[in-house]
Amino acid sequence: MKKFVNDPANFVREMMEGVVLANANKLKWIPQYNIIYRADMPNDNKVSIIQGSGSGHEPAHIMLVGQGMLGAACPGNVFAAPPMEYVYECTKLMNSKKGVLHLINNYQGDRMVFDMAREMAEADGIKIGTVIINDDVAVEASTHSVGRRGVAGNFFVIKACGAAAEQGASLEELVKLGNSVNSVVRTMGMALTSCTPPAKGTPIFKIGDDEMEMGIGIHGEPGRRRAKMAPADAIIDELFEAVASDLPFKKGDRVGLMINGMGGTPFSELYLLYRKAALNCKDRGFEVVRNYVGNYCTSLEMAGFSLTLIRLDNKLERLLDAPAEIPIRVF
Amino acid sequence: MKKFVNDPANFVREMMEGVVLANANKLKWIPQYNIIYRADMPNDNKVSIIQGSGSGHEPAHIMLVGQGMLGAACPGNVFAAPPMEYVYECTKLMNSKKGVLHLINNYQGDRMVFDMAREMAEADGIKIGTVIINDDVAVEASTHSVGRRGVAGNFFVIKACGAAAEQGASLEELVKLGNSVNSVVRTMGMALTSCTPPAKGTPIFKIGDDEMEMGIGIHGEPGRRRAKMAPADAIIDELFEAVASDLPFKKGDRVGLMINGMGGTPFSELYLLYRKAALNCKDRGFEVVRNYVGNYCTSLEMAGFSLTLIRLDNKLERLLDAPAEIPIRVF
Repeated sequence: MKKFVNDPANFVREMMEGVVLANANKLKWIPQYNIIYRADMPNDNKVSIIQGSGSGHEPAHIMLVGQGMLGAACPGNVFAAPPMEYVYECTKLMNSKKGVLHLINNYQGDRMVFDMAREMAEADGIKIGTVIINDDVAVEASTHSVGRRGVAGNFFVIKACGAAAEQGASLEELVKLGNSVNSVVRTMGMALTSCTPPAKGTPIFKIGDDEMEMGIGIHGEPGRRRAKMAPADAIIDELFEAVASDLPFKKGDRVGLMINGMGGTPFSELYLLYRKAALNCKDRGFEVVRNYVGNYCTSLEMAGFSLTLIRLDNKLERLLDAPAEIPIRVF
Repeated sequence: MKKFVNDPANFVREMMEGVVLANANKLKWIPQYNIIYRADMPNDNKVSIIQGSGSGHEPAHIMLVGQGMLGAACPGNVFAAPPMEYVYECTKLMNSKKGVLHLINNYQGDRMVFDMAREMAEADGIKIGTVIINDDVAVEASTHSVGRRGVAGNFFVIKACGAAAEQGASLEELVKLGNSVNSVVRTMGMALTSCTPPAKGTPIFKIGDDEMEMGIGIHGEPGRRRAKMAPADAIIDELFEAVASDLPFKKGDRVGLMINGMGGTPFSELYLLYRKAALNCKDRGFEVVRNYVGNYCTSLEMAGFSLTLIRLDNKLERLLDAPAEIPIRVF
């Protein structure tokens, strides 16, 4: 297994410790429950936003904890939902008079533990709102989900709700906002290679040297089709058509365009892909007013990417532009 | 070849077009000479800083053009120095009354074209300063260099000189500053996998499934030794010792610590590696006052990383904290 790891059983804990060591003044953590949280939260003047899904998608979700983003995250093991008690403890820790917002990507495991934790926390008198993210147009249901999966579009829900929460929005307003953002964002991904969870030690699926998986899920779930390798522009065309025709996006729409790396795809290739996606937007009459190229929701070291389009308006653009801070620095 | 590419001959041009499309208001480009430059440069009140090395190391160097960073970059093909005329045209384009600073990583090809371009530009009356970066402690000379190679430490030279140039420093001051930063920064890298330049179509070196290369160069040049795979902490210990003992760094030093991904290493593993490096700093009595974890100087899709330590002081910390902007957004 070609990975940087010590004991695979400590992979998530040691990664989290690294994040906390790199952000000693801003983040705290509770190793027992895999919780990383803002040192200045909870705050009774703000709704606390939490997320807890499988690890292996970094920077989602533990590296998105910060001002104007998540208040806390409580990941499970690689590609595994967190135990219910992690979510329950995280919810109690982040309890605020204004409430706690659960942002959940649509996977059965995640939904189940968040449902149970919500019931228990509500019995404790905590006010909870829930937003389900399901932006992946690839398949209508898959091995891990009933209904569409939540993938890179999650970033926009976090960013918009995080900004609004910082400005004092109520829990009800945030639920409405989160659902509204989710309703205008669409994504589809693909992969050239598989990836290897540390504790498994072998790739989660096999793929030929001349093959790619179109519509893949972020845990390697099958997509729409296995295909022979194709030029970058042809790959973009297929994902773009699937995403653009789904909402559908229309001529004159102001959009955000994201090319999200799956973890093993270098910046050079992501920008080469962005080029064709931006040209396609021009051809269709979509005005790209915000762009995002980088690693937002990954699958360990997988070589691949997803393409996301989001329909923007003045209100949403202001929220996406609001100050925010995450534990990852570029310079 | 598992890469996102159309015609390999257009790889660099299409990547550059992507960067420019994503930053339409801030960057301009001259495809003929592979030049990307700040739309607000040159400016006679500021020294222009340029760099041009091989492509394949993104974000270095074309994705580091921006306010407080580079004024322009003129890369060659993947892992190849730019033709001399690219550097000459870039220097002329960025000509400012205060002069033009050439930041050159220490490789024979790069030094030769920059030397020739400098001669020609000086004959045109352009004032030029040069800083050579050679932070790699792995080997004293290699296939591409006489003397030590310039690698991820380059980032700190760009950042410090970029900040000082923005504040109006003279060319002489910037040359002195660049040399001074280079003198306190040390790096060593290693790799788990090879990488494949698009035009070559095959990996630049072979490595066994259970092997790693310690001290590797950013073009896949041999390092100090080929070894069997080891735990992440042991890998950090070896690089850390090589880097820390070289300057040498001393108890009580304030340092910046960088874990730089080589392109195919996910954030999860980079932070797991950062953890041990930060703990080692603590053990040695080095105070980590700035940290950098991410992709700064890559080798296409190579799985690997480098560890950099830089000795800081008040002046350098202020320069590293100065406002800067690059064409890549994180969120």
